[in-house]
Amino acid sequence: MFWFALLTSMFALGLAIYLAYFVLTQEEGNERMKEISRAIREGANAYLKRQYTVIAIFFAIMFFLMLLFSYYKLLSPVTPFLFLLGGFFSALTGFIGMNIATRANVRTTNAATQSLNKALRVAFSSGAVMGLSVVGLSLFAISLSFAYLTNVFNNLGDAASALLAFSMGASSVALFARVGGGIFTKAADVGADLVGKVESGIPEDDPRNPAVIADNVGDNVGDVAGMGADLYESYVGSIIAAMILGFVALKNSSAVLLPLTIAGCGIIASIIGTFFVRSGEKTEQHILLLALRRGIISAAIIVAFLSFIIFKLQTAVPFNLFYAILIGLIAGVLIGLTTEYYTSSKYKHVKELAKSSLTGAATTIIDGLALGMQSTFIPVLIVALSTITSYYLAGGFANFNLGLYGIALAAVGMLSTLGITLATDAYGPVADNAGGIAEMSHQKPIVRKRTDALDALGNTTAATGKGFAIGSAALTALALIATLKTLVPNLGLSILNPALIAGLMIGSMLPFLFSSMALRAVGRAASQIVEEVRRQFKELKLLTTNNRPNYARCISISTREAQREMILPSLLAIIAPILVGILFGVEAVFGLLAGALSSGFVLAILMADSGGAWDNAKKYIEEGHFGGKGSNAHKAAVVGDTVGDPFKDTAGPSLNILIKLMSIVALVFLPLIIRFALIG
Amino acid sequence: MFWFALLTSMFALGLAIYLAYFVLTQEEGNERMKEISRAIREGANAYLKRQYTVIAIFFAIMFFLMLLFSYYKLLSPVTPFLFLLGGFFSALTGFIGMNIATRANVRTTNAATQSLNKALRVAFSSGAVMGLSVVGLSLFAISLSFAYLTNVFNNLGDAASALLAFSMGASSVALFARVGGGIFTKAADVGADLVGKVESGIPEDDPRNPAVIADNVGDNVGDVAGMGADLYESYVGSIIAAMILGFVALKNSSAVLLPLTIAGCGIIASIIGTFFVRSGEKTEQHILLLALRRGIISAAIIVAFLSFIIFKLQTAVPFNLFYAILIGLIAGVLIGLTTEYYTSSKYKHVKELAKSSLTGAATTIIDGLALGMQSTFIPVLIVALSTITSYYLAGGFANFNLGLYGIALAAVGMLSTLGITLATDAYGPVADNAGGIAEMSHQKPIVRKRTDALDALGNTTAATGKGFAIGSAALTALALIATLKTLVPNLGLSILNPALIAGLMIGSMLPFLFSSMALRAVGRAASQIVEEVRRQFKELKLLTTNNRPNYARCISISTREAQREMILPSLLAIIAPILVGILFGVEAVFGLLAGALSSGFVLAILMADSGGAWDNAKKYIEEGHFGGKGSNAHKAAVVGDTVGDPFKDTAGPSLNILIKLMSIVALVFLPLIIRFALIG
Repeated sequence: MFWFALLTSMFALGLAIYLAYFVLTQEEGNERMKEISRAIREGANAYLKRQYTVIAIFFAIMFFLMLLFSYYKLLSPVTPFLFLLGGFFSALTGFIGMNIATRANVRTTNAATQSLNKALRVAFSSGAVMGLSVVGLSLFAISLSFAYLTNVFNNLGDAASALLAFSMGASSVALFARVGGGIFTKAADVGADLVGKVESGIPEDDPRNPAVIADNVGDNVGDVAGMGADLYESYVGSIIAAMILGFVALKNSSAVLLPLTIAGCGIIASIIGTFFVRSGEKTEQHILLLALRRGIISAAIIVAFLSFIIFKLQTAVPFNLFYAILIGLIAGVLIGLTTEYYTSSKYKHVKELAKSSLTGAATTIIDGLALGMQSTFIPVLIVALSTITSYYLAGGFANFNLGLYGIALAAVGMLSTLGITLATDAYGPVADNAGGIAEMSHQKPIVRKRTDALDALGNTTAATGKGFAIGSAALTALALIATLKTLVPNLGLSILNPALIAGLMIGSMLPFLFSSMALRAVGRAASQIVEEVRRQFKELKLLTTNNRPNYARCISISTREAQREMILPSLLAIIAPILVGILFGVEAVFGLLAGALSSGFVLAILMADSGGAWDNAKKYIEEGHFGGKGSNAHKAAVVGDTVGDPFKDTAGPSLNILIKLMSIVALVFLPLIIRFALIG
Repeated sequence: MFWFALLTSMFALGLAIYLAYFVLTQEEGNERMKEISRAIREGANAYLKRQYTVIAIFFAIMFFLMLLFSYYKLLSPVTPFLFLLGGFFSALTGFIGMNIATRANVRTTNAATQSLNKALRVAFSSGAVMGLSVVGLSLFAISLSFAYLTNVFNNLGDAASALLAFSMGASSVALFARVGGGIFTKAADVGADLVGKVESGIPEDDPRNPAVIADNVGDNVGDVAGMGADLYESYVGSIIAAMILGFVALKNSSAVLLPLTIAGCGIIASIIGTFFVRSGEKTEQHILLLALRRGIISAAIIVAFLSFIIFKLQTAVPFNLFYAILIGLIAGVLIGLTTEYYTSSKYKHVKELAKSSLTGAATTIIDGLALGMQSTFIPVLIVALSTITSYYLAGGFANFNLGLYGIALAAVGMLSTLGITLATDAYGPVADNAGGIAEMSHQKPIVRKRTDALDALGNTTAATGKGFAIGSAALTALALIATLKTLVPNLGLSILNPALIAGLMIGSMLPFLFSSMALRAVGRAASQIVEEVRRQFKELKLLTTNNRPNYARCISISTREAQREMILPSLLAIIAPILVGILFGVEAVFGLLAGALSSGFVLAILMADSGGAWDNAKKYIEEGHFGGKGSNAHKAAVVGDTVGDPFKDTAGPSLNILIKLMSIVALVFLPLIIRFALIG
């Protein structure tokens, strides 16, 4: 089982290298295109460099503190090093994903001058590089670390528990990447739009706009690096939680290694799935969507089939746990579809939202918020039912720990197809960038039409991807909380314990406080970009002369602001569980985590779906409905879209990581909390 | 103790009658004023009649079902009758409050022609009638019912438990009143403003606007009847929960009767407090505010003092429980002040929100939502800390049930000054109406200035009142959940029970689903009013001729829509706990209630504070800041205000009742849930 996991992970990495090679050998197009692409790449690298510097400082401080704590026996001595390792691998995937994405964008534009299918292949291959790197590196690092730790501890359970520090490292990088990337991308986007489109009336992606490159950089740092780090962390977290819970429940090596094996099956399935992704030359959305969906669905079926065989081949883990994996797989697909239903203009909700723009911005906002609130119903029900059914089908009636193992396996099952799900997701920003490059380098209309078709498709996959990311984060956080319980098996944890109730209330509030910080950060950063763009328009006379805008300045402002603003919310996530634990006891930590999970999950869906729906309602109006571009309805819809931007791309997705990171922090720092707790 | 409670309640009712007599003997003013006031009163009565018809049908069905269940021993035989009784008294207080308010409005206008203090006295007296009726009728009905039930059951615990059905009756009426009234008032308000102020440019309260009377009616049905029923229910619920928990913890009659006694002290304190409310002739807000606040603070101090004496006079209840009451009193005042801090234009948050209007509607919305999210931090912390401290100070360390009793007493303490808190709250709409009548009857500027000063004061007290209502609802709901626990003492209720976790997730989602229904309902109802006002403007040529608008039609449309739209969300609150209980077991019900409490509490604060802040930011701009009336900033602020209207006056306050009603329903229907539960 161990070798299977290690081999598939190396196979994934090999294929990722091959696909990267395929992408890099494509033509880049003419000089103008190269120049734009270079500017985007340089901006992205500059951002990444700065971000990694901040993260490195943070990791250095944490590493030092952890060494200190482990000296006083409050942490395991391997914890600081695994923490570093987890952070390093997460950062590495971000680096790989962004590098390939910023090289694939211009090649996609160039491929689109030849054919739609070719452009899709290039863009999707770069997404697959990211997807396969994430799953490959995760599985590789976890397998090897686990093998090493087993030797150190001579005990599978302790070895698996030690891996939590790895997960915390990954989680910390993910939070910085999500929050920082989210602030960067929306500050640049809102800034570019407000001055460019709204004030000056120039089109989107117009090269005269000084923030236009920053906007394109933002797509990469937010949607590629941020999303990748987010799902990397869910993937790692769910596997490690399942390994620990498997040991607690069954005390045998098969139960511990099973999650790694399922992940290996997922890698094989994802690789096969990618071969199903190809299109003809029709730009109709549903045909293109089918091309991507074919890949995901085939992968899910293959995972189910391979898992079935693995369960049948062994006897150490009860067969019933197979159902938990199946439930996770199905739930992942269903949640993605729900998100699409509420945010696509194909269905009634977005159409009605577009109609409400006829009566102005206020009704657009109210309706959009109501839509987002309503859209939380089905995903919450899906996750709640998955929790109960995977618990009971796994055998929770007879054995509590076996039930918890079932919940964790459901999370592993949901995330097993991450290789291809993330590929369809990371492909989106590449297509978006490709469109921008086509616009800026004045390509023929057919090229722009093709890249637009791919971009629109990317918006749909981004919506389903967000639903998937939120749902898997919720299940992973739940598995982590269950793991925490196994560390303090004798604690009562009644829901009526006053400390737990107080923790629950505080936990329910934290996602709101965190979101408020993220929203305000975007507002502040965007207003700086607005001022800079206005200044450049005026001083360099960009609209009336041929002067070149100073793109780098906008990038550097966004970068600086994003780094500054991401620190406070990130610290909140790390300090809250420790502080609450010390003040009110470990019971309160459970309340805090459960409260943050349940309210953060709901709020994340609300923000993703309201934001996505506003975006698509605006596009629907731009297609000519309800008065089309420039009408009053369109103006109202633009207000909705602008509100939705930081919702769906900054605050909302960061909540996924908030709930996971808080759980991980509680797990890693539990000895410290118990040692210094004032109550209990 | 029992006689003390009964006597004070009768004393409160006596004083209410006296104050009502005082109000009714004031002059009504000239014919025009009388005519307007009559129109408002008739509209309000028409609304109430229709609402009570719907409620009567609902109660008839519930009564029949309850009889059926009690025939099959799934409910106590007294339950159906107590349910009716609770509903009847709640409806009665609504009727009294609205009747006095709609008679006091014109008398306040007339008193304002003479002096500010006189106008304040009239308006405040009418509020006091409402406040004293609520506390008087509650205490009267609970005391007598309890005396009767003690005879029936021969057991104090069973008698107190039977009272829960009374609470459920009050709760059901409250939900209808809050949701229906909230929809009515905001549909009329938004409808009147959109066509009147925005489209036609006529001032607020212009008599040519056909929706203007409906708007004034709405202030009464939403803010008087709705708020009154809400707090009536909290008051009743907290007292009954404390009685039951007192019995469980100490098994003596003093512990059961103590909550009634504290409520009696609160009545005396409130009555004394009202005498402190009087003003000079200065219209400065902080002086007027001081007049009201003096009343509330004195009342709180008096309650603390009287409770201290009562605790010292007896030995059956440990003195430590006095601290729980003190904590509740302090928490109530603090939460109200926090709400004011975040929603008053005196402080920085609203000023910054007003400034964000300079960059348009989108930034206004983002900033307002961020403000509301941030504002949840302190109130949640206050309630969480109150929960822990009242539990431990009461002796929860040694005795779990004593700790729960402490939490319930904190709720009773917080609500003990309801007589005067509600008076300052119910006074607001009367002042608002008085201003409308002054405008419509073309009074001298000084009159309008005085009523405006009183109205602005009303907005402040409405904000603190909302905070108080939310905080007390959270503590009351918590006390009710604790009560539920005592009915199933052997249930484990671990936070990691999968059914409980699933319930927690679903519960966290319900306030969002419920809010979405309420927001959409307001939108639909408002659009009907918009169409009707547009039609009348056109067909009756209201703006160019002297034709009289058809006020009654707007009232009747609002009424009809409110009744229709309030049914679905109300059923959700009643069905959800029963359905979840039957499907997933009693553990899931605890999760559901805890989830709804924690997320509903946060969401309610967010909505109240965002809404209040948008409202006051708009008024701040209208005072001449950032460009003043008619500027682009003002237009953006109006969008914020319009979004905030259904937030703060419909969806937000209804959540208070949602969380309480669901808890009560679970308590009353527990035997039914246990009997038919599919799991557990």
